[in-house]
Amino acid sequence: MTPLELSARAVPGLAEIREGDDLAALVTRAAEDAGIEIAAGDVLVLSQKVVSKAEGRLVRLADVRPAPRAIELAGTLGKDPRAVQVVLDESTAVLRAERGVLITRTRHGLVCANAGVDRSNVPGDDVLCLLPLDPDASARQIRAALPHSPAVVIADSFGRAWRLGLADVAIGCAGLTALDDRRGTRDAGGRQLSATVDAVADQAASAAALARDKAGREAAVVVRGLDRYVTAGDGPGAAAIVRPRDEDLFT
Amino acid sequence: MTPLELSARAVPGLAEIREGDDLAALVTRAAEDAGIEIAAGDVLVLSQKVVSKAEGRLVRLADVRPAPRAIELAGTLGKDPRAVQVVLDESTAVLRAERGVLITRTRHGLVCANAGVDRSNVPGDDVLCLLPLDPDASARQIRAALPHSPAVVIADSFGRAWRLGLADVAIGCAGLTALDDRRGTRDAGGRQLSATVDAVADQAASAAALARDKAGREAAVVVRGLDRYVTAGDGPGAAAIVRPRDEDLFT
Repeated sequence: MTPLELSARAVPGLAEIREGDDLAALVTRAAEDAGIEIAAGDVLVLSQKVVSKAEGRLVRLADVRPAPRAIELAGTLGKDPRAVQVVLDESTAVLRAERGVLITRTRHGLVCANAGVDRSNVPGDDVLCLLPLDPDASARQIRAALPHSPAVVIADSFGRAWRLGLADVAIGCAGLTALDDRRGTRDAGGRQLSATVDAVADQAASAAALARDKAGREAAVVVRGLDRYVTAGDGPGAAAIVRPRDEDLFT
Repeated sequence: MTPLELSARAVPGLAEIREGDDLAALVTRAAEDAGIEIAAGDVLVLSQKVVSKAEGRLVRLADVRPAPRAIELAGTLGKDPRAVQVVLDESTAVLRAERGVLITRTRHGLVCANAGVDRSNVPGDDVLCLLPLDPDASARQIRAALPHSPAVVIADSFGRAWRLGLADVAIGCAGLTALDDRRGTRDAGGRQLSATVDAVADQAASAAALARDKAGREAAVVVRGLDRYVTAGDGPGAAAIVRPRDEDLFT
């Protein structure tokens, strides 16, 4: 077995992204300027924020009219009713709304705080950034526009039910085996592994997060050493990582 | 801002670990044999399994007498009552027991399947491996025995409530800022970041998992590029990552 080595390196110098920007071209150029060639077999991890900005997924609070339910929830939570309305518009269900925390299921099936809507690294004081409409489609489009067809992951930082702190996960991906299903294979002792499905795409997003300066603009990270998971086809994307609702034991 | 680069490299050639083995010495020697010096500022990520084995945290099913509750749960779940008894002995609460899944809170406060008890990569057909009694203490001891005092993380693979697949998390650590609390700092636009605490230790564990051949014996991974999180003191360990029970919205 060849020893594996993983590396994650942020692409410096990416300018502020605006609606309509060609993200693939901008990242490729910034990478080239930094002497990084994004190769086949690499995984390009992009922050959700830049993908959303390029897709114009921004909402001005001034344009939002909160409905009664948003006003009521906002009162309970101590939040801006317009921001709550935006979250509700992105959600199919409110799972928890207490102690200032609003956890919903998004239209993509993701369970996270505020439906992934936030204000950080967004220009303007009253602008919210939403998740991409279809992050797997976004990943496929970006992949198709990149030379050498690396895998593409779109990452966002999620809280966890029983652990503090945020960890990056893959909300979209293309060309990567998001889940490595090794059930039926054997361990070193020859025992069949019963429940071993590795969350490859999520862990790649987490590795990339550690190489990224979030306060800055390092919204793109090139992860190397995952060639064995990079596929010719785009595959089912990060939608495959969402636990089916009928297997959900906790909501 | 200097661009960051993260790398994770498995230490090859680590022999099967037995109770009483000096893990720090064995890993150091295997690393040296592979030309890897584990330096100050590195993070040594060890799989829970080898730490547990070195500490003799193994139980023979033949030695377990299941109590009525274990027998009842085992019937519901289709599991071996003796294995269920071992899980209950490691737990302070059963959170879910349905569809063949047993999710408990361990004595460490961890929420995971089967209290972290499993059989993979364990010698013998009827032997279960338990989590270390105090994984933070284990990490501190191993750190103290390593030259150059790198940070030490003890990693295990956990499922997630709403996502499929397992991701490695830190169940123990020493000398690493497990949670990087950046609340109060500002984003690139000068906006105060409201809820940004990064799960550094968990994400380091996940990065290491991608560099590891789990079916083999690559139980040690050296993660580089996290010097900014490596501390002189051992710090509060991974216990700091456990969400306090009174903030738990989902059990």
